[in-house]
Amino acid sequence: MIDIKKSLAERVRPLEASAIREMFKLMGQADVISFAGGIPSPEVYPTDILAEISADILKNNGTFALKYGITEGYAPLIEQVAEKNKSQGIGSGCDVTIITTGAQQGIDLAAKSLLNPGDGVIVESPTFVGTLNSLRSYEASLYGVPVENDGMDLAAAEEILKTGKIKLIYTIPTFQNPTGITMSLEKRKGLLELANKYDCLILEDNPYGELRFYGEELPTIKSMDKDGRVIYVGSFSKTLSPGMRVGFLVGHEDLMDRIIVVKQANDVHTPLISQMIISEFMKQNDMNAHIAKGCASCKEKCDAMLAAMDKYFPEKAVYTRPEGGIFLWVTLPEGTDTGALLRKAIERKVAFVPGNSFMVDAAKPSNCFRLNFTTATNEQIDTGIKVLGELLADELK
Amino acid sequence: MIDIKKSLAERVRPLEASAIREMFKLMGQADVISFAGGIPSPEVYPTDILAEISADILKNNGTFALKYGITEGYAPLIEQVAEKNKSQGIGSGCDVTIITTGAQQGIDLAAKSLLNPGDGVIVESPTFVGTLNSLRSYEASLYGVPVENDGMDLAAAEEILKTGKIKLIYTIPTFQNPTGITMSLEKRKGLLELANKYDCLILEDNPYGELRFYGEELPTIKSMDKDGRVIYVGSFSKTLSPGMRVGFLVGHEDLMDRIIVVKQANDVHTPLISQMIISEFMKQNDMNAHIAKGCASCKEKCDAMLAAMDKYFPEKAVYTRPEGGIFLWVTLPEGTDTGALLRKAIERKVAFVPGNSFMVDAAKPSNCFRLNFTTATNEQIDTGIKVLGELLADELK
Repeated sequence: MIDIKKSLAERVRPLEASAIREMFKLMGQADVISFAGGIPSPEVYPTDILAEISADILKNNGTFALKYGITEGYAPLIEQVAEKNKSQGIGSGCDVTIITTGAQQGIDLAAKSLLNPGDGVIVESPTFVGTLNSLRSYEASLYGVPVENDGMDLAAAEEILKTGKIKLIYTIPTFQNPTGITMSLEKRKGLLELANKYDCLILEDNPYGELRFYGEELPTIKSMDKDGRVIYVGSFSKTLSPGMRVGFLVGHEDLMDRIIVVKQANDVHTPLISQMIISEFMKQNDMNAHIAKGCASCKEKCDAMLAAMDKYFPEKAVYTRPEGGIFLWVTLPEGTDTGALLRKAIERKVAFVPGNSFMVDAAKPSNCFRLNFTTATNEQIDTGIKVLGELLADELK
Repeated sequence: MIDIKKSLAERVRPLEASAIREMFKLMGQADVISFAGGIPSPEVYPTDILAEISADILKNNGTFALKYGITEGYAPLIEQVAEKNKSQGIGSGCDVTIITTGAQQGIDLAAKSLLNPGDGVIVESPTFVGTLNSLRSYEASLYGVPVENDGMDLAAAEEILKTGKIKLIYTIPTFQNPTGITMSLEKRKGLLELANKYDCLILEDNPYGELRFYGEELPTIKSMDKDGRVIYVGSFSKTLSPGMRVGFLVGHEDLMDRIIVVKQANDVHTPLISQMIISEFMKQNDMNAHIAKGCASCKEKCDAMLAAMDKYFPEKAVYTRPEGGIFLWVTLPEGTDTGALLRKAIERKVAFVPGNSFMVDAAKPSNCFRLNFTTATNEQIDTGIKVLGELLADELK
């Protein structure tokens, strides 16, 4: 058996296995109450409708579905996505839309196509771990900017932009992962202005935007962009199914021209059966009505979790109250290690994701943690939050 | 509209859009006879069986199929693949199997995880364009080694290995793309010995191996490897469906440990519906019998194309006579430009892929071209080869 470790590329050495993905394996095994996942309630999956659709596609259009497709994506789906985006002001004259194998691939393709080793990227701190790993794998230099109650701290961002090292700003402005926080309209405008002023690009990731259950809809940053400065990533993972792995990417044609070639060398194209099922579902059903059902479920679960937290959590634990999405964020007093807390919670069959996973410096213990409120049942939420409340009371006494 | 071209990463600047993929778009449009594609006869797709299977999965196991899966792949499919590989001697104690989004992703993940910019890679010349682009995108230094009638020229390979610059050797030993040539048993052993001697790794790509219709089966290089020196890439694209995008990767556990994290940041996991359909198909059906049907169709088409070529092609055009797979390779006298020939052929509604696409230096015109014999009907084969014969007679007179 050879020592293959010495042959590994520099770029993959520092990558951390996602604590969340690793935890998925654990979840499958035992009777653990999981607040660690990241999907809307599975009970709203339209399995029967999709079963019929998939059989129809393979029976009536099977040869097309099973052959190679084009890299850009299944043409009718691209059109449906572009149409829907257009109704939200997304996509101007210089923009091109492609289908990706989940939003994760959209992020990865953008990172690969834009970032040389050492290029600076501003990310929210905390942010989505999948993006952190993708950026690390292209050896970008990551700069974390704190998230305030109304989104990214723009003054802190500008201090970093002034160094001239930043090529890209990555943001999840709506129901941010992991905090659940939404960036204010003022800050959305401000961030685009900063990108203009310091001539850098914005990667706007919006997987949760349609899952709003409180407050008023805000325009995406992309909808304010007429120059192709914003690359927009969307997904069907949170509105229809994550297992299908279908997302999309909207960006400047000159960038997309390269991204398509990179995708060719990555997976040739996104599986056609996934793309065609989603396209047909959108054609035959009222997608907005389907999403509204998902939203109602998210709201109920969020309300239930916040009610349980208000009841069981000690005062020293503070947490966000999201207007949508699937996550909320708990902050404990400085010095508390939520990694150690997780180990105790797992012993009592409850799981969450400790905050360090979402940080540029993942090795440093964090006093925060993320809770997903949509996967567990209401009863599990009450039981699990009670357990966490007891552990916290013990920890913070 | 901003000038985003200046923001592109160095790694994606030299990538070439695949002539084949670009041609796919053209193919869709007109009544072109295409010898350019790369799939077995679509008429053997078991669309009705797959329609039933997919409906069953979504109806009875829909929530599982639509949720996130684990990055390594759908566990029953991994087991089936590992089992089948084991029966062919593939996979030793240190090896791990994962499912990838097509073999292309397997190649890309291996390249990303192993190659630093400037690392040397030996490839067959000509070779699969998707691999060339993937390797280019990680800024590897590519060294093309000629393909002889019994496979890679090992003496030429050793000359390059002696420089000490090579980390990886990429080979498609069986029914090679684009030549259709199969590496002899002696050379398979020799290549592994060279890899041992010069301490480099082998990436063995075997998408066509099961499509043998003449001659005797040869063991894979991976089956001779007990040290984890060979990374093995396989695919269901040529045996069941390319549009499903399901392949697999077998390699040393220490490498696969990194590759799994890279895949997490790439597409999280391969779409479950694709994986589950294939797993269920293998469970319910005799996969070998299904492949035998595909093989018989490949043989019939290959025989038809060779017969037409023997009849219509001028003597100066020489070509391979594959024992399996889906491609053959035509070599014209030095100085002929098959790119120019393609333009004339397209005018007469016939398409093939000019040889330069498969070369390390794709800008240099090539006197060779690739023909796929499996996609066109027998009638189209006769008509199309006759047209090419006329063009060649004119060109080589």
